[in-house]
Amino acid sequence: MRRKGLASMAVQAVESATTSDVPAPFGPAVALSCRECGERFALGPVFACASCFGPLEVAYDLPAGDPETLRRRIEAGPANIWRYAPLLPVPADVADKPGLNPGFTKLVKADNLARELGVTGALHVKDDSGNPTHSFKDRVVAVAVEAARAFGFTTLSCSSTGNLAGAVGAAAARAGLKSCVFIPHDLEAGKVVMAAVYGGDLVGIEGTYDDVNRFCSELIGDPLGEGWGFVNVNLRPYYGEGSKTLAYEICEQLGWRLPDQIVVPIASGSQLTKIDKGLRELIALGLVEDRPYKIFGAQAAGCSPVSRAFKDGHEVVRPVKPDTIAKSLAIGNPADGPYVLDIARRTGGAVEDVTDEEIVDAIRLLARTEGVFAETAGGVTVGVTRKLIENGLLDPALTTVVLNTGDGLKTLDAVAAGPTATIRPSLEAFRAAGL
Amino acid sequence: MRRKGLASMAVQAVESATTSDVPAPFGPAVALSCRECGERFALGPVFACASCFGPLEVAYDLPAGDPETLRRRIEAGPANIWRYAPLLPVPADVADKPGLNPGFTKLVKADNLARELGVTGALHVKDDSGNPTHSFKDRVVAVAVEAARAFGFTTLSCSSTGNLAGAVGAAAARAGLKSCVFIPHDLEAGKVVMAAVYGGDLVGIEGTYDDVNRFCSELIGDPLGEGWGFVNVNLRPYYGEGSKTLAYEICEQLGWRLPDQIVVPIASGSQLTKIDKGLRELIALGLVEDRPYKIFGAQAAGCSPVSRAFKDGHEVVRPVKPDTIAKSLAIGNPADGPYVLDIARRTGGAVEDVTDEEIVDAIRLLARTEGVFAETAGGVTVGVTRKLIENGLLDPALTTVVLNTGDGLKTLDAVAAGPTATIRPSLEAFRAAGL
Repeated sequence: MRRKGLASMAVQAVESATTSDVPAPFGPAVALSCRECGERFALGPVFACASCFGPLEVAYDLPAGDPETLRRRIEAGPANIWRYAPLLPVPADVADKPGLNPGFTKLVKADNLARELGVTGALHVKDDSGNPTHSFKDRVVAVAVEAARAFGFTTLSCSSTGNLAGAVGAAAARAGLKSCVFIPHDLEAGKVVMAAVYGGDLVGIEGTYDDVNRFCSELIGDPLGEGWGFVNVNLRPYYGEGSKTLAYEICEQLGWRLPDQIVVPIASGSQLTKIDKGLRELIALGLVEDRPYKIFGAQAAGCSPVSRAFKDGHEVVRPVKPDTIAKSLAIGNPADGPYVLDIARRTGGAVEDVTDEEIVDAIRLLARTEGVFAETAGGVTVGVTRKLIENGLLDPALTTVVLNTGDGLKTLDAVAAGPTATIRPSLEAFRAAGL
Repeated sequence: MRRKGLASMAVQAVESATTSDVPAPFGPAVALSCRECGERFALGPVFACASCFGPLEVAYDLPAGDPETLRRRIEAGPANIWRYAPLLPVPADVADKPGLNPGFTKLVKADNLARELGVTGALHVKDDSGNPTHSFKDRVVAVAVEAARAFGFTTLSCSSTGNLAGAVGAAAARAGLKSCVFIPHDLEAGKVVMAAVYGGDLVGIEGTYDDVNRFCSELIGDPLGEGWGFVNVNLRPYYGEGSKTLAYEICEQLGWRLPDQIVVPIASGSQLTKIDKGLRELIALGLVEDRPYKIFGAQAAGCSPVSRAFKDGHEVVRPVKPDTIAKSLAIGNPADGPYVLDIARRTGGAVEDVTDEEIVDAIRLLARTEGVFAETAGGVTVGVTRKLIENGLLDPALTTVVLNTGDGLKTLDAVAAGPTATIRPSLEAFRAAGL
């Protein structure tokens, strides 16, 4: 068989799907659109504008009509991200397909944490550790799986430092796709097991995460990668849309209201930009009131290129070499950095960073006050929230939502917690321990 | 202050609660009743019959009237165990209190697994790894917390080998209670961190789990333990009721239908007996059709006293010294063993066990087919299901539900999964790897 170009494959796949009786594979999505120059392209497994190399994102013909009807339709849907299928690039019957069905995770009213932080308004933690593989990555992968199906890809792939690897492996297993996941060879054992246990191929690359990424870009242009959907490369426009569901859920769980302030971790910056996109969509659809909200970005001091650019008043982000325990956020050259700066400034938010010590303190604070054991990325958002309050940049009297995007069980090494005491099994010994 | 007896404390607490305007602290529960002799006692922090030392369980005055009304009330409730508050020993306003709100976890339709096991009926996995601390223990602890509040206890405690420790620590933190948890001193590091991170006291005991248990029984009778609620000792009757919610959820998620067959892991055996109790309550209330169901118990071969008694036709369970990787099921002298035997025989089920090797195979099978990464206890139930089908004891043509009660991230060591290959970042090296 001769190799077909990705673009022609995509057109074929979409055409074959739209001529049959099955629901449109991309639901309300109508095109890919360049975020820089606005040029439009057919929905396909492409991620960069052919004219200006800008990033492509999904453009929609969103449902018009009475917001109340749409709201009721959503509320009658399943307790996962597919309740928002009318706003995502997925077929209407997506919930019937075998998937991990992530989302609709808890929005925890964090009154104990609020007291400790001096917050007098409503403080909530959106806790995505409740997803099937315990990180928000299940959301983005679930949407990418639908694109992979639509394009006829048979193998799901990605470059990852951990959370994404597990999410791709699990989703591919359940969807009946093959998977081949690429990771730096020196990852923590826990993340390696989680990436390998679903039975797909797991390839350790002798190099850094940047080396893994570059290798994947090469592979995608090679016959070896034929028929492969790289969720965070050639499926990236679809993948990214999964993050919008965080915005939808937060507003629905607040009673179809926008939060005043939202604190989001920054790795590539994609999640933050898609949360903003999701909030703007809800406003456009009339599902929430049109009023201002502020988006705050959170980084680790050991990988804070966006925070630095924000503070310096720059519009470009200068890459850094990451050195932080918050490995899931350790992207030194964040692709969406400039968009994050724009959103933080436009909404009146800010970008801030915290040290590794402050991250660990914040993990412990959240666990101690709310019983939520966050991964290091959750320590970053909680720590940054505390700092933003101290700085006067975040208003403690307003409604604030802080994201926890992962699970403490995956970054155990960051928290050196142990027994208060170790004793013989006797009352005397317990008394002597003086607890 | 002089030490008060537990019984008088309980009566005081209940009286003070029922004379005020707040909802009855135990909702529809009216008494504790001895499972052996049937004698009834006031609701208090007691767990053994004063007459015959039999175990006490909660007795109810369950809501009478139209099942459809009750069903609608449940369906309109929150997406957690508190939707079943009318059937639990908790106040009607329980959902408004700060809690972890576990439950309503996914019932995964496991078609891929069914194909591999030769199951032609509907096969489901009830996946309790989605709970807040990623095991079913969040359910039982949530109910125990309400009892602790009702009795005015200020410290939540337990003996644990891991899952329960994390669940108690997290629940206490969120509820604003102190916690002091006792574990064997040589637990896996991951479980220790998870038990310690919520900021309560964690005490390592130099001894086995049995030593920890005995120590807790001593402590409960000592002034040192005054005001302490041990979830699995003096709060055990309430705690156990939390397991009923697994039965409720399974039936509701099947469209208010009983499963034909259900495979439950056995540690103390409490969970299995409470699932049976829950199913019988749903039948009595008219919420599901009254027809036969079979309950199967699953043990690890390295700790299979109930399985052995079942196969030998005995009514008593001879204690064993556990030696298995399924540590969360490693109770050599299961308190509810005889009741499990009775239920398995009465319903036409069975009790079976699988080796450690079969457990690991089953963990991998479930991960590979459904993207669910189970802890060793989930490997036990899936492995036993496979064996029961081979034995002809479980009918592959019927509707079957298999429980996964915990998360693979907590028992990583059991599964030695690693990369398929480790290579340099080049296409040539990838080609040479021959994947």
